[in-house]
Amino acid sequence: MSQTFDIAIIGATGTVGETLVQVLEEREFPIGTLHLLASIESAGASVPFRGKNVRVREVEQFDFSQVQIVFFAAAEAVTHSFASRAQAAGCHLIDLSGTLPTEQAPMLVPEANADVLATLKAPFQISSPSPCAIALAVALAPLRDVVSIERVTATACLAISSVGREGVSELARQTAELLNVRPLEPRFFDRQVAFNVLAQVGKPDASGYSRVEKRLVEELKLVLAQPSLKVSATCVLAPVFFGDSLSVSVQCAGPVDLVAVNAALEAADSIELVEEGDYPTVVGDAVGQDVIYVGRVRVGFDELSELNLWIASDNVRKGAALNAVQIAELLIKHYL
Amino acid sequence: MSQTFDIAIIGATGTVGETLVQVLEEREFPIGTLHLLASIESAGASVPFRGKNVRVREVEQFDFSQVQIVFFAAAEAVTHSFASRAQAAGCHLIDLSGTLPTEQAPMLVPEANADVLATLKAPFQISSPSPCAIALAVALAPLRDVVSIERVTATACLAISSVGREGVSELARQTAELLNVRPLEPRFFDRQVAFNVLAQVGKPDASGYSRVEKRLVEELKLVLAQPSLKVSATCVLAPVFFGDSLSVSVQCAGPVDLVAVNAALEAADSIELVEEGDYPTVVGDAVGQDVIYVGRVRVGFDELSELNLWIASDNVRKGAALNAVQIAELLIKHYL
Repeated sequence: MSQTFDIAIIGATGTVGETLVQVLEEREFPIGTLHLLASIESAGASVPFRGKNVRVREVEQFDFSQVQIVFFAAAEAVTHSFASRAQAAGCHLIDLSGTLPTEQAPMLVPEANADVLATLKAPFQISSPSPCAIALAVALAPLRDVVSIERVTATACLAISSVGREGVSELARQTAELLNVRPLEPRFFDRQVAFNVLAQVGKPDASGYSRVEKRLVEELKLVLAQPSLKVSATCVLAPVFFGDSLSVSVQCAGPVDLVAVNAALEAADSIELVEEGDYPTVVGDAVGQDVIYVGRVRVGFDELSELNLWIASDNVRKGAALNAVQIAELLIKHYL
Repeated sequence: MSQTFDIAIIGATGTVGETLVQVLEEREFPIGTLHLLASIESAGASVPFRGKNVRVREVEQFDFSQVQIVFFAAAEAVTHSFASRAQAAGCHLIDLSGTLPTEQAPMLVPEANADVLATLKAPFQISSPSPCAIALAVALAPLRDVVSIERVTATACLAISSVGREGVSELARQTAELLNVRPLEPRFFDRQVAFNVLAQVGKPDASGYSRVEKRLVEELKLVLAQPSLKVSATCVLAPVFFGDSLSVSVQCAGPVDLVAVNAALEAADSIELVEEGDYPTVVGDAVGQDVIYVGRVRVGFDELSELNLWIASDNVRKGAALNAVQIAELLIKHYL
């Protein structure tokens, strides 16, 4: 006998929602009926699944008792509005928006803290962290056995797709205008994003940190189960369509054994370690892949307890859709 | 009476060499005769100066006894070949290539260590550091009075112009090909640079660090006169034509007084401090300016002794040509 699950995806027309559908199909997730949902503005579109076009319906009208698992891949406000309805209907809930309190829906990256599932009770509510927190957790998780990590300093050059389709269109439009020597009038962003690096993603709060930076700090501590870990995060937007690049400096408790570090990274299934002298990039390496790419692994130039590395990761795939599907796979394999 | 100086610029046809000519003219440097020099491949071109076109001649044929000050803005190999001839002729020498040993030609950023000049004897030999070391030194110099800096972790997103004109052309060409949906065949770089971030600038040595990273580490310690400073540097190439962006995390000896830090940055003549909530970028802010832009000044999210900031700087102007001219200005004002 083979069990199937009826699934709903909220935010099905976004870049993450569409990739969710694609990843579920590729990995042959045992789906009975797939319900694609979105806010009223996006309802009516259709998304291909198993050779057919599935129509996207309005989430407001949806009866959550029809499904067992719901993926929230929509904006915070949408998740906020409908999470309690899904909960009330007894659905298992996987949230990609970071909206739910982590006490209610713990952060989970299967490569780092799959064991957190054993502490939960049905119906399950689980959060899939932000893309750069996932990439960083996947890279650092296997290192916990070979170094004692005290502090992580990360600069994440996020892809424009982090801010959604409108950002992607705007980068393409601005670039074309500039190459055609036409005057630039920024629209979606308040300034030129083409051939520029924007030092901030969204408005920072009084502490000076943006939401994506605070998520990176807090989610990494949770996923690595290291509340005392110090994390310094700077998230910026690079003029890149897809794929996050992270420059990471790790301060360890003692001298770093580079051979052991490389061996641990090499042995990790979700990591492609790029050989010394070469380096990974998002375009050409990470984008479209299920693994994250790690390279430029080196001990500090003047500090033996420092480990530096570079990570390239598909922000939409492993950074969002794939991680959420892996969570669902763990759930159905062990708990449902 | 007004004294004038006869000047030679080697590497006059490069982006830095051309900007040197422009900055010397703008700042009304007291030039008698300006000699523009280059290797045989570039000789014959001409560069505008004071309303005339100055012909670029072959450096091999040049009699250095005709000039008092020589700027080396050429590649390492060229500097290597001709520095000793300029020295033998008794010229004062300002090197922008990082070729000369620092014991012979100390690193100088006027905003940070102008006092080093008093320790030298004529004929003067002085090095102007790499662009990102200059930007970082200008930003950190005024902070030495308000915080005790122990460690600097910097990720520098360098402009493509860091690797010269061919890099600039290649970014433009690749971008145009991609926007026209034509197949991409990388030429100057070994991979796609358009809409991508290249994690390494040149080949690293056995330690894993590239030359530009090692220069950043060593030059910053020299210019800040802090040999025990720890510096962690990662230099990458962003798909940006001009302007370096630096994400900087500074570990201090004690809690950071953000008000004092902002006041010190605000008071520095060579720094434009961007107000809280906003942020500087290379395009639109730093490029074409004599000052560097600093923003996103914030205390560590979970560490009160950590100071984070973002720097945007014109790599060709303040990062090279302007700094070299400022060195020459100090020389003629106080020592010649």
